[in-house]
Amino acid sequence: MDARTYIAENRDEFVAALKEWLAIPSISAAPDHHADVHRSARWLTEHLTATGFPTVEIWETGGLPAVFAEWPAADPQAPTVVIYGHHDVQPVDPVEAWRTEPFAPVEEGDRLIGRGASDDKGQVLFHTLGLRAGMAASGATAPPVTVKLLVEGEEESGSPHFAELLRKHRDRLACDIVVISDTTMWAADTPSMCVGMRGMTDCEISLHGPEVDLHSGSFGGAVPNPLQAMADLLSGLHDADGRITVPGFYDDVVEISAEERELIARLPFDEAEWLRTASSTATAGEAGYSTLERIWVRPTAEINGMWGGHTGAGSKTIVPRSAHAKVSFRLVPGQEPLRVQEDVHAYVEAHTPPGLSAEVRFAGPGVRACASDIHSTAVRAARNAMSTAFGTEVLFTREGGSGPEADIADILDAPLVFVAVGLDDDRIHAPNEKVEVPLLLKGAESVAYLWDELGRSTTT
Amino acid sequence: MDARTYIAENRDEFVAALKEWLAIPSISAAPDHHADVHRSARWLTEHLTATGFPTVEIWETGGLPAVFAEWPAADPQAPTVVIYGHHDVQPVDPVEAWRTEPFAPVEEGDRLIGRGASDDKGQVLFHTLGLRAGMAASGATAPPVTVKLLVEGEEESGSPHFAELLRKHRDRLACDIVVISDTTMWAADTPSMCVGMRGMTDCEISLHGPEVDLHSGSFGGAVPNPLQAMADLLSGLHDADGRITVPGFYDDVVEISAEERELIARLPFDEAEWLRTASSTATAGEAGYSTLERIWVRPTAEINGMWGGHTGAGSKTIVPRSAHAKVSFRLVPGQEPLRVQEDVHAYVEAHTPPGLSAEVRFAGPGVRACASDIHSTAVRAARNAMSTAFGTEVLFTREGGSGPEADIADILDAPLVFVAVGLDDDRIHAPNEKVEVPLLLKGAESVAYLWDELGRSTTT
Repeated sequence: MDARTYIAENRDEFVAALKEWLAIPSISAAPDHHADVHRSARWLTEHLTATGFPTVEIWETGGLPAVFAEWPAADPQAPTVVIYGHHDVQPVDPVEAWRTEPFAPVEEGDRLIGRGASDDKGQVLFHTLGLRAGMAASGATAPPVTVKLLVEGEEESGSPHFAELLRKHRDRLACDIVVISDTTMWAADTPSMCVGMRGMTDCEISLHGPEVDLHSGSFGGAVPNPLQAMADLLSGLHDADGRITVPGFYDDVVEISAEERELIARLPFDEAEWLRTASSTATAGEAGYSTLERIWVRPTAEINGMWGGHTGAGSKTIVPRSAHAKVSFRLVPGQEPLRVQEDVHAYVEAHTPPGLSAEVRFAGPGVRACASDIHSTAVRAARNAMSTAFGTEVLFTREGGSGPEADIADILDAPLVFVAVGLDDDRIHAPNEKVEVPLLLKGAESVAYLWDELGRSTTT
Repeated sequence: MDARTYIAENRDEFVAALKEWLAIPSISAAPDHHADVHRSARWLTEHLTATGFPTVEIWETGGLPAVFAEWPAADPQAPTVVIYGHHDVQPVDPVEAWRTEPFAPVEEGDRLIGRGASDDKGQVLFHTLGLRAGMAASGATAPPVTVKLLVEGEEESGSPHFAELLRKHRDRLACDIVVISDTTMWAADTPSMCVGMRGMTDCEISLHGPEVDLHSGSFGGAVPNPLQAMADLLSGLHDADGRITVPGFYDDVVEISAEERELIARLPFDEAEWLRTASSTATAGEAGYSTLERIWVRPTAEINGMWGGHTGAGSKTIVPRSAHAKVSFRLVPGQEPLRVQEDVHAYVEAHTPPGLSAEVRFAGPGVRACASDIHSTAVRAARNAMSTAFGTEVLFTREGGSGPEADIADILDAPLVFVAVGLDDDRIHAPNEKVEVPLLLKGAESVAYLWDELGRSTTT
């Protein structure tokens, strides 16, 4: 039985298992869901044991647990791959905007709807299906490469303990290639491989003014208003060209090469269609860059949330005592998150007017951007495997999102390869997240071929 | 028995009645408290009937009810006064910042703590005590002037139906003087009389972007962010001199005269002390004006609340689908609220970037500013009465806050006189609102003398 047939015959079992896992609300950003993150880790260990991994472990961290599993190749000379994914998920608010319960996954035709379906449980799980499919096809009882699976539990919270975990287990994670399955493809009918991701660091900024909310009749117009100061501070983050004004912010940015800009420009990008995916009616951003460049290779400052003063029904004419904002910065190769954090601290301090005090708390150390060499052996092998699975040429893209990938590449000293089948319209951080089940199956098929090709490349 | 003695002897009964009334959470801005506003109106009618008013009525409006009561003078030639106050109160959030329950009034020495103690139930209630005190002193069975009391139930919601109510009952409210008891004095030991109030109009501004929250990794930097646009729009409301940039906003402002500026400058204003009252550490505002001018005679734009995107615990790296702000504009004589509303609509439209849509909803028609002629008979009589009650000279001030006073003066075609005893540190729109009971008693004494003086001025 070939891998494709095995996968088709095991589709229903695969979806049933994924639905079980998706039912666990493993929201790492919500303290009241931390027990669920632990539960999600336990579910995964049971699944991996059932799959046949001889070694399955929960790796505790200073925060939430990761899952590690290892299945050695029969041939000790075969290469070793580390597969990275995560089992925590995004929060679900506004929960009223979901058509279905976020943690009661529902199949609608070929789609599976639920938080984590695409980001990232679905993409982690296709690996076990792919591994079994490859072994069913070859009749072997061990994989053609040594497979190490590392599934973290804090990715949606900025992976605060992940680098430490990698360093602690560096020896056990020794590998030749790191395969990342936490990204998207160009389109369902245009498979592609990501060769770079932006980094990220995010913070909460608070401005404190009067000790209590003041009556705006008695005091308005004569004391600084924290919300006004916050609006000024945030408005000043960008200049008229959409460039970020934080001093030093661009100092270490590695500008994209003319060759890379040309490669990006060659992609069959339909801006109108992209806007539909974004459910938006206009583009906006840094002057001088295309939409794809803006989301892939340019750093950003994005206000993710803002609040302060009276936000309930009716009027309350106050000068509020405080204002708050959550701001995330997407980073590109060259930028060090800790340097950016220092620069943002200095910016906020410089933009806090007399009479107000400021606080800036970063959610963690942040993550660096990363990029792969498209001419490397690993990228070429993965591209071939995906091309065989999808039956068509595989293009190169980048991702605007962030993961701990840069840390993995640095600490494990191995090249990154992205094998992932999410789509940009999967609504991965929004209500009604979904995944296309046929693409998950293609993901499984791709890795079945990839392990085979990598195994053969060594033994020949 | 003179009025002062009568008031002292009836202090406890007065405070007990006020505590009863304060226990009713008559928050007009909160729909779930509208039944309490009705209950508050009924409580007041019972109290007025017990006081001796021969006519006591609840006046329904398109919204929440007002209370009207009338007690004719024995002498049909005596002047008629309308006393204005309100029986609705401000919301109480953040409720966790209250040291005591907002609607379980507590006496601490001479202070009474509870929502509405100063604004405005305490100041409405001193009138019934004053009326009885005056009649006890003279031995009369009717007041020396015809007293009409009008206590509305929507003042803290912008008095949306009050002008209509005044017009409907214009004949029954016919009067020679309107006495307003909803403001503050300079200080407990520096009694003063307000001769002007700012007007107000307030709105909620919403900016809508993508139909759903977007993942800032996939879309951030390439679509307009409603929170960023809101920050830009609100930041742009003021120029570097603290002047409001809404085109046309200052067109109709009647600038304060040099004489008035000099009068204001003569007040014993201690800015450090004022900042303590504001629990703030720095002043701010329109360049070229003093703090008292900024709060009394200059218009403002104040952000009362702002929200959008992820405001809960942890990180959520999104481009939010919408942003919201509540903004109130304090107005000065000359400015028409409806004209300001049009100007603000145009400003928001002009500052909404492509790809976003804007909504501006004003809470109601707004209220105009008002000012009294300090040389009028009514102001002089009230000043004399207060001077007698307090035993010291009474100064003139203004109020930065807003009420429906301009409507009253216009519609009833009568001069306004402010007789009020609140203090700026009463925290009237904040947690832990309080009132100084001895000042309420002085208020009662003042109106006892005022009715007497106004009654005698006619018959002589």
